[in-house]
Amino acid sequence: MPAQLPQKALRADARENRDRILKAAREAYALHGIDVPMATIARRAGVGVATLYRRFPTRAALVTESFAEQLEHCVAALFEALEDPDPWHGFCVFIEQICLTQATERGFTQAFFSQVPDHVEYTAQRTRAEEGLALLVRRAQDSGQLRQDFGVDDIVLVMLANCGATAGAGEQAAAASRRLVAYLLQSFRAGPAAPLPSPVRLDLDRIHPH
Amino acid sequence: MPAQLPQKALRADARENRDRILKAAREAYALHGIDVPMATIARRAGVGVATLYRRFPTRAALVTESFAEQLEHCVAALFEALEDPDPWHGFCVFIEQICLTQATERGFTQAFFSQVPDHVEYTAQRTRAEEGLALLVRRAQDSGQLRQDFGVDDIVLVMLANCGATAGAGEQAAAASRRLVAYLLQSFRAGPAAPLPSPVRLDLDRIHPH
Repeated sequence: MPAQLPQKALRADARENRDRILKAAREAYALHGIDVPMATIARRAGVGVATLYRRFPTRAALVTESFAEQLEHCVAALFEALEDPDPWHGFCVFIEQICLTQATERGFTQAFFSQVPDHVEYTAQRTRAEEGLALLVRRAQDSGQLRQDFGVDDIVLVMLANCGATAGAGEQAAAASRRLVAYLLQSFRAGPAAPLPSPVRLDLDRIHPH
Repeated sequence: MPAQLPQKALRADARENRDRILKAAREAYALHGIDVPMATIARRAGVGVATLYRRFPTRAALVTESFAEQLEHCVAALFEALEDPDPWHGFCVFIEQICLTQATERGFTQAFFSQVPDHVEYTAQRTRAEEGLALLVRRAQDSGQLRQDFGVDDIVLVMLANCGATAGAGEQAAAASRRLVAYLLQSFRAGPAAPLPSPVRLDLDRIHPH
């Protein structure tokens, strides 16, 4: 109906603005980390700072929305891995997936694991993620396929290493991630192996793009 | 003789200044990379910019001098590794050493591998290093102990991964490096192993602290 056209146009315009802001935010986070000023994001998106704040009243809200899709994928990947009838296969696929996400979506890992103030939603998801990871490791060890001296901290170590490999490899980030992860998974597999140096206590919030 | 005392005192003073500048430079490079302005280094060292330029007329000269000792150690480590009667042992010890240096001397790896303009000395050393690394890999493969699908590019991949692990692990950098490298070396060892994803062509100058 002709009477609704202006409103529809306005809504389409608003949605377009919102998408442009989220895209600009993801790009800025990837380049500068999630501490990048709101004004920088507004400039990248080509909107005024007032418009930005009207859509996303806090930095935390913008971070959450920017990475909502990626977060959903990662949580889904973890729960899928936990339901894999082959615990070792589930473990490997999850590590591969999370590292590939890290390679292609820089900024997201930092967003997820860092403590954005008043960012309640992620804290809950993070706790669930930590419990899920511990279970993932235990299942694979109980099945006898993951070496017994592997610890949850080693997943953080893998992600830090993957950060370095992908940051340094530029446009070859995904390929570098795949090769590094393949090497690491082969050495995580239970079997005759030399003893390892002591595990390193690493918190998940150590992970951030450099 | 009393007549020499003032000159001696001056020389001691000049040497102290020089050491202070080199220490400040290494710290600044570790924090900000080797592109940090000369003025920042002068400020850290507590000397005037004029004094800094009198001692080190170019940025390249300052970088070279700052890391002369570490560079000597690394080159020595490579040549020692090449003379190890057990090529696999030589290969492992070298990888461990270079990664530990990277963990404890941030900035050095960037200094060595990046192309500082008019920095002729490093270019020559770099070419020798690349030839040495290729030989190190070939020897370990010829002895049947290093997997045949390992490439020199994988050494760069290890160093990039190590960069990420050590940057993220903060004061636990050395421990994180040791554990990561132990995992990787176990998977580099020849033996029954699954095929790897394609190697990634990585130049040594990709390595820099993030």
